[in-house]
Amino acid sequence: MLMESTMQQGALTVAGILRYGLHAFPEAEVITYDGTHGSRISFKEVAQRAAQLANALAGIGIQPSDRVGTFCFNHHEHLESYLGIPASGSVIHTLNVRLAPDQLQFVIDDAGDRAIIVDGIILPMLAQVLDGCPSVETLIVVGAVLDQAVREELSKKLRVLDYEEFLSGAEPTFEWPDIVETDAAMICYSSGTTGNPKGVVYSHRSTYLHAISALPLYGQRSWNILGSKGDIALIVVPMFHAAAWGAPYACWFTGSTMIMPGRFLQAEPLASMIEMFRPTVSSGVPTIWNDLLHYLEEHPTDVSSLRMLTSGGSATPRSLIQEYLDKYGIPVVSGWGMTETSPVCTLAIPPSGTPRERLVDYLETAGKVVPGVELRIVGENQQVQPWDGKALGEIEVRGPWITAGYLGGHGVENFDDGWLRTGDIATVDPEGYVRIVDRTKDVIKSGGEWISSIELENAIMAHPAVAEAAVIAVPDDRWFERPLAFVVVKPGTDLEVAELREFLSTRVAKWWLPERYSFVDAIPRTSVGKFHKKVLREGYQSGVYSIHEVDRSEGSR
Amino acid sequence: MLMESTMQQGALTVAGILRYGLHAFPEAEVITYDGTHGSRISFKEVAQRAAQLANALAGIGIQPSDRVGTFCFNHHEHLESYLGIPASGSVIHTLNVRLAPDQLQFVIDDAGDRAIIVDGIILPMLAQVLDGCPSVETLIVVGAVLDQAVREELSKKLRVLDYEEFLSGAEPTFEWPDIVETDAAMICYSSGTTGNPKGVVYSHRSTYLHAISALPLYGQRSWNILGSKGDIALIVVPMFHAAAWGAPYACWFTGSTMIMPGRFLQAEPLASMIEMFRPTVSSGVPTIWNDLLHYLEEHPTDVSSLRMLTSGGSATPRSLIQEYLDKYGIPVVSGWGMTETSPVCTLAIPPSGTPRERLVDYLETAGKVVPGVELRIVGENQQVQPWDGKALGEIEVRGPWITAGYLGGHGVENFDDGWLRTGDIATVDPEGYVRIVDRTKDVIKSGGEWISSIELENAIMAHPAVAEAAVIAVPDDRWFERPLAFVVVKPGTDLEVAELREFLSTRVAKWWLPERYSFVDAIPRTSVGKFHKKVLREGYQSGVYSIHEVDRSEGSR
Repeated sequence: MLMESTMQQGALTVAGILRYGLHAFPEAEVITYDGTHGSRISFKEVAQRAAQLANALAGIGIQPSDRVGTFCFNHHEHLESYLGIPASGSVIHTLNVRLAPDQLQFVIDDAGDRAIIVDGIILPMLAQVLDGCPSVETLIVVGAVLDQAVREELSKKLRVLDYEEFLSGAEPTFEWPDIVETDAAMICYSSGTTGNPKGVVYSHRSTYLHAISALPLYGQRSWNILGSKGDIALIVVPMFHAAAWGAPYACWFTGSTMIMPGRFLQAEPLASMIEMFRPTVSSGVPTIWNDLLHYLEEHPTDVSSLRMLTSGGSATPRSLIQEYLDKYGIPVVSGWGMTETSPVCTLAIPPSGTPRERLVDYLETAGKVVPGVELRIVGENQQVQPWDGKALGEIEVRGPWITAGYLGGHGVENFDDGWLRTGDIATVDPEGYVRIVDRTKDVIKSGGEWISSIELENAIMAHPAVAEAAVIAVPDDRWFERPLAFVVVKPGTDLEVAELREFLSTRVAKWWLPERYSFVDAIPRTSVGKFHKKVLREGYQSGVYSIHEVDRSEGSR
Repeated sequence: MLMESTMQQGALTVAGILRYGLHAFPEAEVITYDGTHGSRISFKEVAQRAAQLANALAGIGIQPSDRVGTFCFNHHEHLESYLGIPASGSVIHTLNVRLAPDQLQFVIDDAGDRAIIVDGIILPMLAQVLDGCPSVETLIVVGAVLDQAVREELSKKLRVLDYEEFLSGAEPTFEWPDIVETDAAMICYSSGTTGNPKGVVYSHRSTYLHAISALPLYGQRSWNILGSKGDIALIVVPMFHAAAWGAPYACWFTGSTMIMPGRFLQAEPLASMIEMFRPTVSSGVPTIWNDLLHYLEEHPTDVSSLRMLTSGGSATPRSLIQEYLDKYGIPVVSGWGMTETSPVCTLAIPPSGTPRERLVDYLETAGKVVPGVELRIVGENQQVQPWDGKALGEIEVRGPWITAGYLGGHGVENFDDGWLRTGDIATVDPEGYVRIVDRTKDVIKSGGEWISSIELENAIMAHPAVAEAAVIAVPDDRWFERPLAFVVVKPGTDLEVAELREFLSTRVAKWWLPERYSFVDAIPRTSVGKFHKKVLREGYQSGVYSIHEVDRSEGSR
């Protein structure tokens, strides 16, 4: 038998996170924005309300392991659920408010949610699917309900309670139970573009370790002892996306002020919040940062408080990173991960001491692994590939916040001897920086060579007249597959195919140049804001898009 | 049955630490100082040599769980042991080179070390105890052996190998085994001032989590993306003290340059290293920082590279912190912990935004708990005390890097329902800052009230003529116990008792003023550099000290 240590086990649990922030930073604040103002609440009050929530849920019969859904934007009530539900032993199931009704119904039913905490303003969206969700007994409504008829109709079938009334009678302390750290804390469904969503069940252990790994993003300034302020985090990434990338728990650990934007996620209110609350850091998808950048061009705003933006969920275009750095001195740090990975696996922090003119070369990568995650790339031959910046392989990851499967045992084909196969194709350079080349299903297989749809999109989006672009593979008689580029031109500008091809010819290999273009008003997006390439492929097959095809003799492969 | 998560277990192991630094920062460097120069070696080379060490140890029959001792100063070879021995499944036992021979023999024998890696220069110290250590079969000698006769004598009884030769034939890769994270990684003996030392066995899990908690101390600068360099850590705290407070593992995680001072721990070579290698952070005991401060007064040195010093092992005097801040702009951050706690439990990071003139008020505390540690204070009535800055209680801690016992089951009386009783008496203020008032065994119980020996010492040491001071309780007819102050006067200065009492009278309560003083050349210290109050008490009882006792009518209690 091997020698055991003398150490305490010291279970890593959400109750531990809750107690830590309460004891270390009772006066730290959470600000929730209502469209014009911010209301402030202290960590101590949030902790007391989390305990009230746990007591009230116990009062309606919610037991350990029972699932409690949230159908909410980002606000302090959602944070109370993040803390109080898992700490009490129940499981929070964060529901994506942008899911299609059939998918929403599927995930509520699949997880077996017994109660759902729901924003009053989107109660009608939830109401339309609840007939297909027999497990749901109780709705707890946050904020005002605009459509009282919906509420009255729901009240005939379910217990419908007001969140503040629900909490008001409950005790503000709770004897948080001892919990086995590998037990469930949170469920988040992976929004695959094919098939039904699949449930990823985060444990207390994974939640805790993932949050700890994110601390430098949200608490770094507190350690600059001489004369700097603590971090203030504007949490734009929705709390229904993979635990908001760990930001709420990380800020709770570091005592950083959290700004919760509610449903006000457009560029204009975000700019207002930045001027009003002066955040130092913010996390969100590239689309948000792109929209904000365009807004700032027209509406000068003081964004000098920001020391860093974090971008993830899809690739961040180099041009976007370059503009934020050049115009505002703000580094945009990309992260890479997925719901299955909690999600943070990598962060594009440049090596210390990188000269300013080389920063973007690192910031535009997917970054290097954070401590806790192990990563490898595996080629078509199933061989682990070298980190030479050239060899391509599918990214595989393992570690304490990487899933080993899905709720109900689905999807085990995604695993390779204990490593999660991610479906992303990448290179890794000798310094450990990962560059995502494509999705395994999006890469364009042209004449035995691979063309990265993402690199092509980035090259196209670098053109000043292009607002956004998406590239898919379409069948080709000669080369088997060739790229088709969907292009959205910026309002008030014109763009000819010939000009775009001329522009691209200096940026990509000649044989990568698409022959097919389609100018569209917008690129369709998935519920989490990514390009919905499945819709583009289907639309192309059914002939809904007008395609401009150039003469092959112009030199394309 | 409770709901399980879908997460991978993702064992937290030293092999995981080793792989992370190797992959993320292969070019980062470890500098070992030889008294005049620094030799550099990359993380990649250290990792390869750690694998060679593991292979070579396996080659001489070292098995998983076998103990391998190190009797070494801080250098890259010691780091190779820190990584390679636990990663391979064996257990590193760091031997304190300052232990008395009987204690050294005891701990080697108690742990059952099969091999010991030893610095050639201190081989004679080890040699004198090995006859009482039958488990030891092999010595592996680092660096030159000055006394070849000792080596030859040892070679008659043991296998004595040269470290470089030992490694030279071995493969530079090792298939690190899967390890249960709660298994033993490192043994460190607690140097109690009474009784035999007791073994604390750190696990892979505790080692990993403790190192992660120390990351902001050693890697913060890497996250300042615009224009700052990475951290460079001068690791002064010996690697035979509680894993050097986690510094080597933390730097390995962050890719921070490590400067290893070898045996050159005096103020003069430390000042040379600071000028030569420009560290940004350094950790050590207060005595070291006190010696350095005095040296700097006489020998102007460029210490501008330092952003922070970390101080622990015993209380850091306020005057010391104030001088570093005022003269050099360097915050000295205290930490609190003990071998039983891995050791870091608290760090005195001031709240963000603290004005400069208030920094010392926070820096002089023991700090607040780091994420992962839970702390409470328990009064004489066994009641948990409030965090009001007034109530006194013994500190109790729990968490994943707090010990639950000792090797061989010793010392279980130190536990209170899963919490480790630390023997330190403290207050905690509403912000969570801990102030150590005394040791339970050092506090002076004067007429039913407690006098803190530590606060008295700090008040005495604030006098400009005092180099250091220690206070113990001595029996008193009227008050049961009264303080006796041992005072070391700075060379070239004079100090009268009357002047010292006058000075103290404005700093402590009148009834705290000691009536008994003894001027000595030095305060005796333990093997880890703390005041050895047991020696002072015994010396007092046997009458070896000359005591100056003031007239009671002067107003003392």
